[in-house]
Amino acid sequence: MKLLALAVLLATAYSPASALWPQPQSLQTGSSTLRLAPGFQITVAGRGVPGDLLAAAGRTKQYLTSDKLGRLVVGRGADDAHTFAAAKTLSRLTLSLEKGASFASITNEAQKAPEERDEAYHLVVPADGSGASITANSTLGLFRGLATFGQLWYEHDNTVYTISAPVTIADKPAYPYRGFMLDTARNYFPVSDIKRTLDAMSWVKINQFHWHVVDSQSFPLEIPGFTDLADKGAYSSSQTYSLADVRDIVSYAGARGIDVMVEIDTPGHTAVIAQAHPDFVACAEATPWASFANEPPAGQLRFVNATVTSYIADLFTAAAKIFPSTLFSTGGDELNTNCYAVDTPTQAALNASGSTLEEALNVFTQKTHQALEAKGKTPVVWEEMVLVHNVTLSKDTPVLVWISSDNVKAVAEAGHKLIHAASDYFYLDCGGGGWVGDFPSGNSWCDPFKTWQRSYSFDPVANLTDAESKLVLGGQHLLWTEQSGPQNLDPVVWPRAASSAELFWTGPGGNISAALPRIHDLAYRFRQRGVNAIALQPEWCALRAGACDIDA
Amino acid sequence: MKLLALAVLLATAYSPASALWPQPQSLQTGSSTLRLAPGFQITVAGRGVPGDLLAAAGRTKQYLTSDKLGRLVVGRGADDAHTFAAAKTLSRLTLSLEKGASFASITNEAQKAPEERDEAYHLVVPADGSGASITANSTLGLFRGLATFGQLWYEHDNTVYTISAPVTIADKPAYPYRGFMLDTARNYFPVSDIKRTLDAMSWVKINQFHWHVVDSQSFPLEIPGFTDLADKGAYSSSQTYSLADVRDIVSYAGARGIDVMVEIDTPGHTAVIAQAHPDFVACAEATPWASFANEPPAGQLRFVNATVTSYIADLFTAAAKIFPSTLFSTGGDELNTNCYAVDTPTQAALNASGSTLEEALNVFTQKTHQALEAKGKTPVVWEEMVLVHNVTLSKDTPVLVWISSDNVKAVAEAGHKLIHAASDYFYLDCGGGGWVGDFPSGNSWCDPFKTWQRSYSFDPVANLTDAESKLVLGGQHLLWTEQSGPQNLDPVVWPRAASSAELFWTGPGGNISAALPRIHDLAYRFRQRGVNAIALQPEWCALRAGACDIDA
Repeated sequence: MKLLALAVLLATAYSPASALWPQPQSLQTGSSTLRLAPGFQITVAGRGVPGDLLAAAGRTKQYLTSDKLGRLVVGRGADDAHTFAAAKTLSRLTLSLEKGASFASITNEAQKAPEERDEAYHLVVPADGSGASITANSTLGLFRGLATFGQLWYEHDNTVYTISAPVTIADKPAYPYRGFMLDTARNYFPVSDIKRTLDAMSWVKINQFHWHVVDSQSFPLEIPGFTDLADKGAYSSSQTYSLADVRDIVSYAGARGIDVMVEIDTPGHTAVIAQAHPDFVACAEATPWASFANEPPAGQLRFVNATVTSYIADLFTAAAKIFPSTLFSTGGDELNTNCYAVDTPTQAALNASGSTLEEALNVFTQKTHQALEAKGKTPVVWEEMVLVHNVTLSKDTPVLVWISSDNVKAVAEAGHKLIHAASDYFYLDCGGGGWVGDFPSGNSWCDPFKTWQRSYSFDPVANLTDAESKLVLGGQHLLWTEQSGPQNLDPVVWPRAASSAELFWTGPGGNISAALPRIHDLAYRFRQRGVNAIALQPEWCALRAGACDIDA
Repeated sequence: MKLLALAVLLATAYSPASALWPQPQSLQTGSSTLRLAPGFQITVAGRGVPGDLLAAAGRTKQYLTSDKLGRLVVGRGADDAHTFAAAKTLSRLTLSLEKGASFASITNEAQKAPEERDEAYHLVVPADGSGASITANSTLGLFRGLATFGQLWYEHDNTVYTISAPVTIADKPAYPYRGFMLDTARNYFPVSDIKRTLDAMSWVKINQFHWHVVDSQSFPLEIPGFTDLADKGAYSSSQTYSLADVRDIVSYAGARGIDVMVEIDTPGHTAVIAQAHPDFVACAEATPWASFANEPPAGQLRFVNATVTSYIADLFTAAAKIFPSTLFSTGGDELNTNCYAVDTPTQAALNASGSTLEEALNVFTQKTHQALEAKGKTPVVWEEMVLVHNVTLSKDTPVLVWISSDNVKAVAEAGHKLIHAASDYFYLDCGGGGWVGDFPSGNSWCDPFKTWQRSYSFDPVANLTDAESKLVLGGQHLLWTEQSGPQNLDPVVWPRAASSAELFWTGPGGNISAALPRIHDLAYRFRQRGVNAIALQPEWCALRAGACDIDA
């Protein structure tokens, strides 16, 4: 009796219609089986339907048949088959805008400033087989609804079905910025890897790709007018992102509801610029590297030099032209002052001008930010620009908090909008051991590994006042790639990065035990779609919701 | 001048001919460029050449052209091209047995007892373009030489070459057992994943596949006469290893110089047997699982029951028939006594017989081991069978030391042969975070991550007397798969598992800084051969030997 009661409880708590990720704000489900008709169609009502929405509908329709995902229960859905014969069939999903709204492309709506993106939608799947519908005030909202619709279905014996009809969903994000950061400078990733990652991001409604594209180790980005940086600084001529590649990635992302925020990290993390412009870089590849940088090679821009400042302002302007996003990250992390203390040109320039290093940094930052603002961009910076340096920044400058979640409060108190990116919750590289050579006792600096459960349990407004809480734009997982490349991209990122996707879409406070079967479901679906999301537990656990919880 | 001196030093310390893994016992290299002739051939001298040796020669020849590996220097070998025109070409590699030796198949020689395997070889590649040669006393030695030969070559602009001719190598392993363990029970791996892993193992001269094929979570192995275990205990009918699969894997391994030691772990780790034989298992899926097992589901054999003992003896006998190895692991780890304390049938049987649980365990162990010994097998056990339980074991029973390297001494003092498998050095799953559900603060029990440098620095004879040191058969990396599946098999295992392959082939004490460029080279070559070995460092470091060492 006790076991039976438990089984019933589990069936309720982990009903398959709850296998949506991120969890919608409002979800009502029934217990009827509904099958997809063989000729199932997705149509968009109205005129002037943008091409990227039609393409998205086409991809969704394709997933419905190609996912072939069995339900995550013992028998993988075999027990559902007896309900198929009597089940109603669904022939059509119709997407339509609310009255008064008009079509723009998904791309254009995704590339708006975060606070201006409208991602809300309503989704109804009746149990009687009459048409399903997604309605929204924007194309972007319709697209988010499609992602949800695509997660409702399972397959058994060539029948695509749900056992939870009817389904009624009202949904919108808790936070406007839900990102993922990839570093393509420590190790290079082909365009195909980035596109596959963008697809996966779109499945969990992540709307921001933060592309840390260049760093001290390599400069793979070909910026018109500045291609010498990649010519001399990429790992090889085949390990670059051409202008065509950038357009391809930006367009691919946009059509999937994702904006691309590029990061040209300055004035630190710039050793590679010395390959093309030796005079612009202090302590380039200086040794011992540990005296001049947090990792090899050392090298930072001589920002005291007005020529360097103008060059970077022009570089930003040129890069801004190829990235339509309103956001542009100028970096600003991990500046090593010792590098400048021993750099003769820097010291001579400071002496000549009578400025301090911090004053010069302020000039550099303002001039380079002004160049971006002149192009309509909002600069974004890492936390040190607020917490370590005396730099005058517009309060509109969003700040990425990375060193520790303990620093969130200080950034908020400084009045800045902020993006959660704290290493103690969201760094995907933590726990991989030390990578510096000749150091057998070395360990990951941000050890231990951040599990999905850890990230999921983060509170975005911990210790913040109500006013400060309003400064939180959202957050993201991040992958720094000292120990990553195409070989382990998917396994390191997925499904873990989905935990912040839900945290910042659905909002904090989600139940971890209830989330586990859903994130299993997501991981299995990812694999069916060609993304190598890893096993979070033995399959025995994945097929038995709750059975591997700590106190089960 | 200082920089120049450093460059020369690096070029010497990390000459490309040193990019062999594992490092040979004796290696002399020159500095001449030698190219492979377009019609390069590998021939085997003598009569009765076994088919698996001919096939191995064919695979090696294929790798020489398909590897297309550029040297790991800035420019990836472009600076070598000026030497190509004047370089001699090599047209032939000849394999031959030493006088008096006769051909057996690689398979037969690999499947001998570890101490009887003859893996020594000599390899000569003259600089003048006259034929290269591998000589050995055994087919297995010739095969090891082929693996070495295949690592000597780089490609640039369609030229396959070395810049280190002549090359003279005399080589043999320090330890006879160099293994890798894979758990296919927590999560299932298709045969193709196992085969790819066997290929990778052979490239670094690993000679033992320790196949932890079944466990409490699933029983994928179809054993003739006992197929109900897989029928009812595999995750699904498609997640099994049929008799044909086993023969395929054993044959594939053998042809690559690898013996397959199967493990049927008993009497713990057997919950799944209850699916077919409920009466055989105590505390099957009992809750809370944490009271009865180290991980869910609980369930252990009722070994006090003579019927169960006979059944397992028969099961071992049947499994022994399909695995030609001399070694057969019977497990014996993590027995939970609380499970038996509350198991009514066990307590009744103990009361009836007047035996203690330990006495009954001794009877079970002896009877099941005798069944294997009757078939010519040597049982292998985990350390608890020696260190925790009062079980009478033959001194010939090798013991896998896993809980801690601190336990090596005690096993050696007990007089047992031993295999290093300590979690604090060789567990590939450590550092991946906790996987138990509803436990956001949970961490990997064997945190932190074991880097290749950590494993590489292990001393196999630490604290052992000379006599005890002779008991060390070798060692291995191990992958428990609570958080692994086909999605992350390669990235979790490679190139890390290569560090123990070299440790136990070349012997301990290798220089970590000198090894780093070589293991980079190996990882890049693995990728060219389709194995997703991960980046150990940014590519900037991989192209600049030593530049990312801790004190560089």
